[in-house]
Amino acid sequence: MIKIGVFGATGYTGFETIKIIRHHPMAQLMFATSESTAGGNLGDLYPVDWDIPLISAANAPLDKVDAVFCCLPHGASMSAVMAARQANVRVIDLSADFRLTNSSVYQKWYGIAHESPQLLSEAVYGLPEINRAKIRETNLLANPGCYPTTVLLALYPLLKAKLLDPTASIIADSKSGVSGAGRKATLKTHFVEVNENLSPYNIGQSHRHIAEMIQLVNELGGVGDNLIFSPHLVPISRGMLSTVYVSLSDKLTADMVHNLYAETYANQPLMWILPLGQLATMAHTQRTNLAALSVTLVKPDQLIICASIDNLGKGAAGQAVQCFNVMFGLKEETALI
Amino acid sequence: MIKIGVFGATGYTGFETIKIIRHHPMAQLMFATSESTAGGNLGDLYPVDWDIPLISAANAPLDKVDAVFCCLPHGASMSAVMAARQANVRVIDLSADFRLTNSSVYQKWYGIAHESPQLLSEAVYGLPEINRAKIRETNLLANPGCYPTTVLLALYPLLKAKLLDPTASIIADSKSGVSGAGRKATLKTHFVEVNENLSPYNIGQSHRHIAEMIQLVNELGGVGDNLIFSPHLVPISRGMLSTVYVSLSDKLTADMVHNLYAETYANQPLMWILPLGQLATMAHTQRTNLAALSVTLVKPDQLIICASIDNLGKGAAGQAVQCFNVMFGLKEETALI
Amino acid sequence: MIKIGVFGATGYTGFETIKIIRHHPMAQLMFATSESTAGGNLGDLYPVDWDIPLISAANAPLDKVDAVFCCLPHGASMSAVMAARQANVRVIDLSADFRLTNSSVYQKWYGIAHESPQLLSEAVYGLPEINRAKIRETNLLANPGCYPTTVLLALYPLLKAKLLDPTASIIADSKSGVSGAGRKATLKTHFVEVNENLSPYNIGQSHRHIAEMIQLVNELGGVGDNLIFSPHLVPISRGMLSTVYVSLSDKLTADMVHNLYAETYANQPLMWILPLGQLATMAHTQRTNLAALSVTLVKPDQLIICASIDNLGKGAAGQAVQCFNVMFGLKEETALI
Amino acid sequence: MIKIGVFGATGYTGFETIKIIRHHPMAQLMFATSESTAGGNLGDLYPVDWDIPLISAANAPLDKVDAVFCCLPHGASMSAVMAARQANVRVIDLSADFRLTNSSVYQKWYGIAHESPQLLSEAVYGLPEINRAKIRETNLLANPGCYPTTVLLALYPLLKAKLLDPTASIIADSKSGVSGAGRKATLKTHFVEVNENLSPYNIGQSHRHIAEMIQLVNELGGVGDNLIFSPHLVPISRGMLSTVYVSLSDKLTADMVHNLYAETYANQPLMWILPLGQLATMAHTQRTNLAALSVTLVKPDQLIICASIDNLGKGAAGQAVQCFNVMFGLKEETALI
Repeated sequence: MIKIGVFGATGYTGFETIKIIRHHPMAQLMFATSESTAGGNLGDLYPVDWDIPLISAANAPLDKVDAVFCCLPHGASMSAVMAARQANVRVIDLSADFRLTNSSVYQKWYGIAHESPQLLSEAVYGLPEINRAKIRETNLLANPGCYPTTVLLALYPLLKAKLLDPTASIIADSKSGVSGAGRKATLKTHFVEVNENLSPYNIGQSHRHIAEMIQLVNELGGVGDNLIFSPHLVPISRGMLSTVYVSLSDKLTADMVHNLYAETYANQPLMWILPLGQLATMAHTQRTNLAALSVTLVKPDQLIICASIDNLGKGAAGQAVQCFNVMFGLKEETALI
Repeated sequence: MIKIGVFGATGYTGFETIKIIRHHPMAQLMFATSESTAGGNLGDLYPVDWDIPLISAANAPLDKVDAVFCCLPHGASMSAVMAARQANVRVIDLSADFRLTNSSVYQKWYGIAHESPQLLSEAVYGLPEINRAKIRETNLLANPGCYPTTVLLALYPLLKAKLLDPTASIIADSKSGVSGAGRKATLKTHFVEVNENLSPYNIGQSHRHIAEMIQLVNELGGVGDNLIFSPHLVPISRGMLSTVYVSLSDKLTADMVHNLYAETYANQPLMWILPLGQLATMAHTQRTNLAALSVTLVKPDQLIICASIDNLGKGAAGQAVQCFNVMFGLKEETALI
Repeated sequence: MIKIGVFGATGYTGFETIKIIRHHPMAQLMFATSESTAGGNLGDLYPVDWDIPLISAANAPLDKVDAVFCCLPHGASMSAVMAARQANVRVIDLSADFRLTNSSVYQKWYGIAHESPQLLSEAVYGLPEINRAKIRETNLLANPGCYPTTVLLALYPLLKAKLLDPTASIIADSKSGVSGAGRKATLKTHFVEVNENLSPYNIGQSHRHIAEMIQLVNELGGVGDNLIFSPHLVPISRGMLSTVYVSLSDKLTADMVHNLYAETYANQPLMWILPLGQLATMAHTQRTNLAALSVTLVKPDQLIICASIDNLGKGAAGQAVQCFNVMFGLKEETALI
Repeated sequence: MIKIGVFGATGYTGFETIKIIRHHPMAQLMFATSESTAGGNLGDLYPVDWDIPLISAANAPLDKVDAVFCCLPHGASMSAVMAARQANVRVIDLSADFRLTNSSVYQKWYGIAHESPQLLSEAVYGLPEINRAKIRETNLLANPGCYPTTVLLALYPLLKAKLLDPTASIIADSKSGVSGAGRKATLKTHFVEVNENLSPYNIGQSHRHIAEMIQLVNELGGVGDNLIFSPHLVPISRGMLSTVYVSLSDKLTADMVHNLYAETYANQPLMWILPLGQLATMAHTQRTNLAALSVTLVKPDQLIICASIDNLGKGAAGQAVQCFNVMFGLKEETALI
């Protein structure tokens, strides 16, 4: 059994991580931290046969675990990650703190100086469908943001095949459920403000998640600055859909595009490429750890990709466990399907 | 034109009051207060042709108005009411501060001492269907709570006809939309906590609103202590339904019960008594200022009344304007249907 | 491995049953029927690694299975059950067809003659917390309705301890998510009609589910006719909460009541008795197979029980698998927590 | 008083039209038709003081009215419109039947032959902000679709100023509430299928509404075929938001763009141009008859316009009454704000 700990167990992503780990045949939860309810027990929040004391992060017994999942907010995550790495514990960090390779880019987008820039070079961006080999070896896994997961999975086959028109905008119109905004009570997450409403926010090139998308698109040979990304908040608890509009550098048929996606993601256990004629909806992946993609060719060089994930599944906790499985040489989909 | 002011214009009830007043042919809005956005303008919140500066309550020009609507939280309302009464302005207070006739009962339920107990004796409880004559004369109108409005309208015909079994419990199982909880951001009103959930709270005899129900039931000749009241929060923005279960002191037919309700509420412009066989739902009254009632006789002495209102309409702002209309001798339903 | 088949695999309960069975370590799905999509494949509806052909019920290979789950509508279920029993296959029937022991009572409530009244005597009502011994032996399990599950679990400790006042009404005010109404498209289940609405229906003693509640209450020594049951449809996909109001024949303390419930349900793996002071909400059990109960003593002889289940979990598919586990001598909570 | 009739009074748009007309000081409702509930009364559906018999369309007294609102589905609308025009009654048709000027284009998109192509030439497309002069004179008003209203209002200032890059795609990513799909019960509008889901449908160039968008864009000097339009169904009863991505033929500043929109829509009573830095959400226009627009310049030649309407307000009934007001020389916003 691989012994693990979870930092930030009572937020939405931490709790989801624990629910997945609970059914994981090869992982054993040794501790769970929560500053807000330290001294309590997970069994008070969830039923029946759980008995997991909630402790303060400062008291986490790092010497008893092989790996930790860090489910803390960005900024707060850095110190927990540093402590774990110093204790030689492998880390899966779900925050944004180790996703960007350049500390000044981090500071630009997140408004704070990075406390451990020396760790950035060993961090690996955790999209197994793109980065599996590196993930296998890393001790510091930076779990991707939910929005970037959809957009990058939508673009990857085109980037790999060098089919994106380098002179054209890439437009990602994304819709997210509210749990992506975290559990903190704000007017923006008040039921009456969200319900029966749909709100764009930070559209264009102003949402923080665009930084990691640009970084990856550039790494994969594309033009990151072509990205235009518009997130929208929708009155749904869990779910994410990105509708991605791209211009191709070549004229293709629908079958050619579909084959490209099917082949690129062949044998990827959590990828679901829909048949031509079907469109990915949030329901395809809700409360699963899958990503579903559909492709719709509008003109021979105009393509729409719909990418659906559960923002807490493949968009956070599910992907984190997927990376954990890769890191520890387990079957990648263990506990995930 | 009757000149009015609104205290607390940016909460849900204050804003709803202003939206009704805007279409009122005999009322003119002279000021609107908001502590959180003082210095702003209602036109920033709502479109096009509005130009109503938002001021601090301390700067309210009470000398320029005939009446004020106080849409402040309980506790905070008392001082605004006192100031208005000292300026000889008629008051419609939507808080709980002047609903209870006894200041020690107020203190018991609301946990604070009443600052102006001398005003309690002149306050009139604003249910026009029960109290119209007194409302006409008063200068201080205590607008009822939303829950009590449903329960008291459901019970009034039986109380008036002395048909309630005085030895049996009266069970009011109530369901409320979230706007009834106000606009303050809390974990209880977080979208993800409310959505796909339904929560009882303060059930039995522990919710504050039971105090005014008990008071009125006693005043109307019933046994207030028989009331058992269980509110539930439902994932709906606006709406309220109370399902009220009573034992009758006599055996009746369904027609007799229906006639009793139809006659008691004949000529009440905002009451909608449904035909036998139909049940009141939230949709019957949503975004209206009406109350809809249905009666279902289960056994000759066992009756269920379903009472539906919009918690911001007949449950708050609509009823406040209805009382305003009565106080100023206007047609009661002006601007309300 | 126990080999099983599922009739009616594409309705909400059938699909949920299959999702549970998929993770069941001792059960293997041999066939799944669907009239509407016969010829299709479950893998078209759900992702990745499923390959389960959907066949017509007429073609079900009953000789290859040990047990079947019948997830057909009432009326339609009878013939499938008869065929399975003739093939000596054990049956878990999720419809209402075998819940009532008396065929004329069935005919009264469901409006059709029972086609196999001879099977009614061997059917066992599948509430393991009440009926476990009989369930173990039966070959024909009648899985309870969702509403009766909540109400009967709420009342059972009082019935067992003979604490219900036999002269007083028992009032069950129940709220259900929409999946309980099935997948058929009707105006009643149209999004715009349900959303932002809450509707009572068939209240008093007119909903079909009251028949099985009355039967069980009578069997357990209570007065079934005291039941008043009011279902309400709420804008939620999955979830059920019943708020049950009873008069006690003795005066108790809150601790005494709580102990009674805790002891009655001690060692029941799917029961969650909340501590005094907490109230059961839909969220406590949503997307689980648990039932959560809370008790609130209003007066020494007036009690409110809140009973929460997921209508597709403990209210349908989860309870069906629980009964299956009992019938086959497996650990009762296998695949359920 | 202008005397009017409404065909199709019990659908969502018909009912909304009647609710607006009810408060219209210059319009009097003479008849309302409904095939499904002919013989009933609107007062059964809506409360208190309504007494409007519902009749079959075949019995509509066209000789008693000056104008009719046709709120029938496309295809069904044609015959009612022809009858009204033969009776010399002015028509506001809310269906798609008279929006396209070319009957073969109609046949291509709607799959049926047009029954009265001779009327197409006299029909005027009812976007007052673009077509006011023609609307004033017409006897046959084709009320725009909800999606086209958002997209065309978003594009009009750029088209008028010839600022759209003619070689670039125009991408309209649109999100609609469910009432836009009509009141017919289908699996697509089933609560459980819609709730907690978000679904793209008919994306690219395959949704019928793109035909009228292409027609108008071409008329206004743009390249209609550049349009890519992707509608999405969201779990909301009423509301619509289109996020429109365009490339400009010139490099502009944010202020220049904002001024263009502000000036183009100056003095348009139902247009609400948000200040720079704010984004249009569904809440801005929900249950109003307004359109709200925001502009976000991403790069000097890359612009995002967010356009919000209520699909039953400015997207259907509200715009129909606006056109009615223009046709009859009334103040355009009468009964609408």
